[in-house]
Amino acid sequence: MKNEGNINSIGNQQIKPYKKDADYSYTLGAFPTFELINAKPEIVRKVIVHSSFTEQEKLRSICSRSNIGIELNDKLINRLSDKENCYVAGVFDKYQCKLEADKPHIVLVNPSNMGNLGTIIRTAVGFAIYNLAIIRPCADIFNPKTVRSSMGALFRLNFAHYDSFDSYRQEFGRHEIYTFMLNGEKTLTLDNCPKAKLYSLVFGNEASGLDDSFLRVGTSIMIPQSPYVDSLNLTIAVGIGAYVFSNQNRQ
Amino acid sequence: MKNEGNINSIGNQQIKPYKKDADYSYTLGAFPTFELINAKPEIVRKVIVHSSFTEQEKLRSICSRSNIGIELNDKLINRLSDKENCYVAGVFDKYQCKLEADKPHIVLVNPSNMGNLGTIIRTAVGFAIYNLAIIRPCADIFNPKTVRSSMGALFRLNFAHYDSFDSYRQEFGRHEIYTFMLNGEKTLTLDNCPKAKLYSLVFGNEASGLDDSFLRVGTSIMIPQSPYVDSLNLTIAVGIGAYVFSNQNRQ
Repeated sequence: MKNEGNINSIGNQQIKPYKKDADYSYTLGAFPTFELINAKPEIVRKVIVHSSFTEQEKLRSICSRSNIGIELNDKLINRLSDKENCYVAGVFDKYQCKLEADKPHIVLVNPSNMGNLGTIIRTAVGFAIYNLAIIRPCADIFNPKTVRSSMGALFRLNFAHYDSFDSYRQEFGRHEIYTFMLNGEKTLTLDNCPKAKLYSLVFGNEASGLDDSFLRVGTSIMIPQSPYVDSLNLTIAVGIGAYVFSNQNRQ
Repeated sequence: MKNEGNINSIGNQQIKPYKKDADYSYTLGAFPTFELINAKPEIVRKVIVHSSFTEQEKLRSICSRSNIGIELNDKLINRLSDKENCYVAGVFDKYQCKLEADKPHIVLVNPSNMGNLGTIIRTAVGFAIYNLAIIRPCADIFNPKTVRSSMGALFRLNFAHYDSFDSYRQEFGRHEIYTFMLNGEKTLTLDNCPKAKLYSLVFGNEASGLDDSFLRVGTSIMIPQSPYVDSLNLTIAVGIGAYVFSNQNRQ
């Protein structure tokens, strides 16, 4: 059964554990791998499968539709994955996207944790916000840890990197900017969420948040919280912002 | 400077890396350790500090107020912590709590991930829900990973474990039950959150959610989401439920 299916020429390249400067990455696990193949079949180099994988027939069927090769390779799967229960991986070409100018955005300023970045991507897609701007320095969006915690939602979303918030802002001047800050001027309750046709929800780094210069770039928003926490977890803050704004401004 | 401060007799016991059946655990990092000392000084056995810790004076001051011993021990800190930038740990006695019968609850059915459990505790406390029921089997609430991701909010909250949802329900019959399920009957929007004086928000396991028997124990709630995700991350679902219900039912 080894190397069954159509292996294209790139597919025969040796796959190595992830490196940030490589031109490919991979999904780990069944759900993200199926998401990859369904959403972006054209970037899939090949799929690697462990002999214990139980959904081989389903996998073969959707891979053959998109002419994607499957490699049965227990050793390689074990080497790529640090978890024991991973039985399938999808190797894909890294790619670039363009943000949609007429759709709402989430903007992350210096997100540093890959698990958080993936969870935020999953959450954004969950609330139908499909455009994500990321201000450098930032966690690696293609790291398998990010891809895994996005549960493959990465492949449903447009993202773009910027060196500064200003350079993002110059490109998208029509978006109303909402910055989420502990000292924000507006307290976000259920009945006072701003109505905006086009909006950008801006969140800072996990440890440091947004600095006070962001008080002046739009409307600053505070999610009300008890005095017994320093702040909400970044992913929770993004989840609440995305939920409230997407419900208030259904398109 | 070794063993400075008042070391009580328990404090001299040898501290070992965490075990689930030990009668003590520890906080890792400055913020959770300060939270521990401020919220529950009576359970602190001792505080262990690394010579590189920069807030020693503040720490000494609040420890001496509560007669808590401080041990300077770089090796022990390194052994307890798997992260390199951890410079302080607080060793504490495990304890039990009772839930308040006249306050809202969060109920987690079989939460399996310690990081998620800690984040949920931080989020619950952030939205002023200070009572958490946990249905076994479940992640260990005292594991240092849980404590760390709670950012010490664990010490601000009452929690109790139950062997089944029914045994929880028998103890708290007056709470209105809201179960969060993908096939929930009521879609949670900004303007239709139930009003309830006493409520329990119930969430299932990360992978499997709540089974269909939970459709019959109260009002089932669905957080609206796009078709491109399988579900929201558990911590995000709890965050949105807690935010919406606590804002709708301010006490």
